[in-house]
Amino acid sequence: MPVDLPQTLPALPGQRLQRGVCRGLRALDFVCVEELIPAPGLRVDVMALGPKGEVWVVECKSGRADFRADRKWQGYLDWCDRFFWAVDADFPVELLPEGTGLILADAWDAEVVRMAPETPLSGARRKVVLRTFARAAAGRLQQLRDPGAGV
Amino acid sequence: MPVDLPQTLPALPGQRLQRGVCRGLRALDFVCVEELIPAPGLRVDVMALGPKGEVWVVECKSGRADFRADRKWQGYLDWCDRFFWAVDADFPVELLPEGTGLILADAWDAEVVRMAPETPLSGARRKVVLRTFARAAAGRLQQLRDPGAGV
Repeated sequence: MPVDLPQTLPALPGQRLQRGVCRGLRALDFVCVEELIPAPGLRVDVMALGPKGEVWVVECKSGRADFRADRKWQGYLDWCDRFFWAVDADFPVELLPEGTGLILADAWDAEVVRMAPETPLSGARRKVVLRTFARAAAGRLQQLRDPGAGV
Repeated sequence: MPVDLPQTLPALPGQRLQRGVCRGLRALDFVCVEELIPAPGLRVDVMALGPKGEVWVVECKSGRADFRADRKWQGYLDWCDRFFWAVDADFPVELLPEGTGLILADAWDAEVVRMAPETPLSGARRKVVLRTFARAAAGRLQQLRDPGAGV
């Protein structure tokens, strides 16, 4: 059992979903980076890297308005092997486009309820994505572990 | 100027060098993961990933005895594009083998004083190394940001 550390819940509904998604995907042996920028002008809520190098993108939508305001999601399809929406149990899932994956989440956990179709990254694109993911993760880790470095 | 946060110095001499190495490489736009296991039985002190995907390994030696006890370093050559030793100003650098890079470090900073020769990773090996690096960094980041996840 994990130690029950005191923790604050993330402030925004979308962030709470992100936390749950990262926890749920971790249980599938995926590691996650939130708010990753795969290319200028794009920022994905969660990018997840699987044990075999699978790259998943998960966009977290806290409600109908949040979903309707999204004009960018199709741009994310080119940066992952599989694309998912993550929503809570109250979200009207019939709004979500076909051909995308679905994750039900809350702040504590998440479950893949519909697997996204696979559209594998090209080798060159995968290399770029993996490098971006690795540099973001290591840079943030370094910043957290050694804030005095001032980077 | 970075904010001068109160920080404890790492306990062990080797760890202090590691911290300085990571800071110094960050200034070269490399991100670092410490204590990375590229393959079973191998654990490198610092693996660094450059802006163009360069993979460097840095072994930190706190003194003559520490260096002489190392039986594994040649095994690390296959897991990086360039291999460096990091030592402090008192280390007898004439002990270090030819054909390796040299970084002078303390707990606060580091400087590359002799560039290592380049022996580029194969494409397949690079992919494995990058994935290992990315998963280690993201997993540790997740653990630090969300310790309640219990992973």
